[in-house]
Amino acid sequence: MRTIKLVIAYDGTGYCGWQRQTNGPSIQQELERAASIICNRQITVHGAGRTDAGVHAVGMTAHFSIATALSCRVLQKGLNALLPEDIRITAAEDEATGFHARFSALAKTYRYTFFTGPVLCPLRRLTTYHLPYPVSLEAITACLEIICGTHDFSSFETAGSRDKSRTSGRGAIRTIFRATIEEADPGFFQLLITGDGFLRHMVRNLAGTLLEVGRGKRDVPEFSAILQARDRNLAGATAPAHGLTLLKVHYRYDW
Amino acid sequence: MRTIKLVIAYDGTGYCGWQRQTNGPSIQQELERAASIICNRQITVHGAGRTDAGVHAVGMTAHFSIATALSCRVLQKGLNALLPEDIRITAAEDEATGFHARFSALAKTYRYTFFTGPVLCPLRRLTTYHLPYPVSLEAITACLEIICGTHDFSSFETAGSRDKSRTSGRGAIRTIFRATIEEADPGFFQLLITGDGFLRHMVRNLAGTLLEVGRGKRDVPEFSAILQARDRNLAGATAPAHGLTLLKVHYRYDW
Repeated sequence: MRTIKLVIAYDGTGYCGWQRQTNGPSIQQELERAASIICNRQITVHGAGRTDAGVHAVGMTAHFSIATALSCRVLQKGLNALLPEDIRITAAEDEATGFHARFSALAKTYRYTFFTGPVLCPLRRLTTYHLPYPVSLEAITACLEIICGTHDFSSFETAGSRDKSRTSGRGAIRTIFRATIEEADPGFFQLLITGDGFLRHMVRNLAGTLLEVGRGKRDVPEFSAILQARDRNLAGATAPAHGLTLLKVHYRYDW
Repeated sequence: MRTIKLVIAYDGTGYCGWQRQTNGPSIQQELERAASIICNRQITVHGAGRTDAGVHAVGMTAHFSIATALSCRVLQKGLNALLPEDIRITAAEDEATGFHARFSALAKTYRYTFFTGPVLCPLRRLTTYHLPYPVSLEAITACLEIICGTHDFSSFETAGSRDKSRTSGRGAIRTIFRATIEEADPGFFQLLITGDGFLRHMVRNLAGTLLEVGRGKRDVPEFSAILQARDRNLAGATAPAHGLTLLKVHYRYDW
């Protein structure tokens, strides 16, 4: 029995998210359908986590177990031939027995992209949140410094999701290793956040609150107080899904 | 009567091209619909040229005539409010009487984007042609140097289109001011071509032939001979529409 790790990129626009669901097509379902055809039996694909409806990925990971003589290269080509064009396997490789896409992951990096100019280029509309207001990079950077390190992120957890996302016994405590903002192209800003794990909607809730600080609707001390309060009712709006992309899942060997 | 110049960006994926047609939605039709609502009378919008079905634009231009007291800023905002999200007016400004988006244009710049890696990121699939083979930048650059200057481009004109695209009395003679290739991101290459005008499908026919040279299916002397032969049957395949973007239409003041 082999354990195959997949690295997956997808345009989340047309999907109800990573997880198999009844209300629409999901990335997991498409992968399982394709893998089951290639392997000629029902395959369950285990993802490194879930992404919400509309969220994109460049480096999502998943694994599945299979007894096959097919090379990883052939598996990858076969999957890509069967998958829709908005889902691509960018890498397939054998892992040691016991590898688990989710439990072996040490960290994830997310990118949140927003554009502050008056008119967003339509070629970038599906991956960029349009926030047509000037933002203070200094204020956002100050907040990003505050979230780095280990904190209880209850204030940025989506209400009602407590039971589901706290499966590791560490409650809402997470460690952010790195959090930066950069202007990639004129007017296009990217928040890049790497952490050992994220609560449900945590990146979007952080992004929404950071953008409120950036626009001057809140100040840095208020952001700090929100984090410390551990009360979801204090934080800002959840930023839209389409600005979010899962860039990478980090495992021991690349961390 | 005022002459309003528009700069327009669009994702051409869902359109049958710039020009009003009966077989599907066109950019021109959407613009005329929106402009007619704002101006409360039937408006005809004149484009700087036509783009094929699936071709994108960042800086297409058009003009229309109107007697209105509305400011350009209000016109732009109103149009964007009425247009679908995949078409955006990025600028609207008054021009002198006699300005014509097409006849006043001195040059246009097109970009053709292709990716040579094995798996194309799905987030870029709608604007990038996937050509999963190594290409020789040196060979393509040599061909780009050959097309610079004034030539008869009959070999790169789509067969059967002669009557329509030769309206200026200059036959198939066009001048290319600048033609370059660059690697924008790893594996992503951009052909950038600026000329005083382009025959129907000329950029896509050039791109298709240049890519055949890049892959080694033809050599540079052969490319040169194709240009000189003025025979469409010799050139390579027409490169797919979705890799092409009209970047800019140049007028006197910015040229």
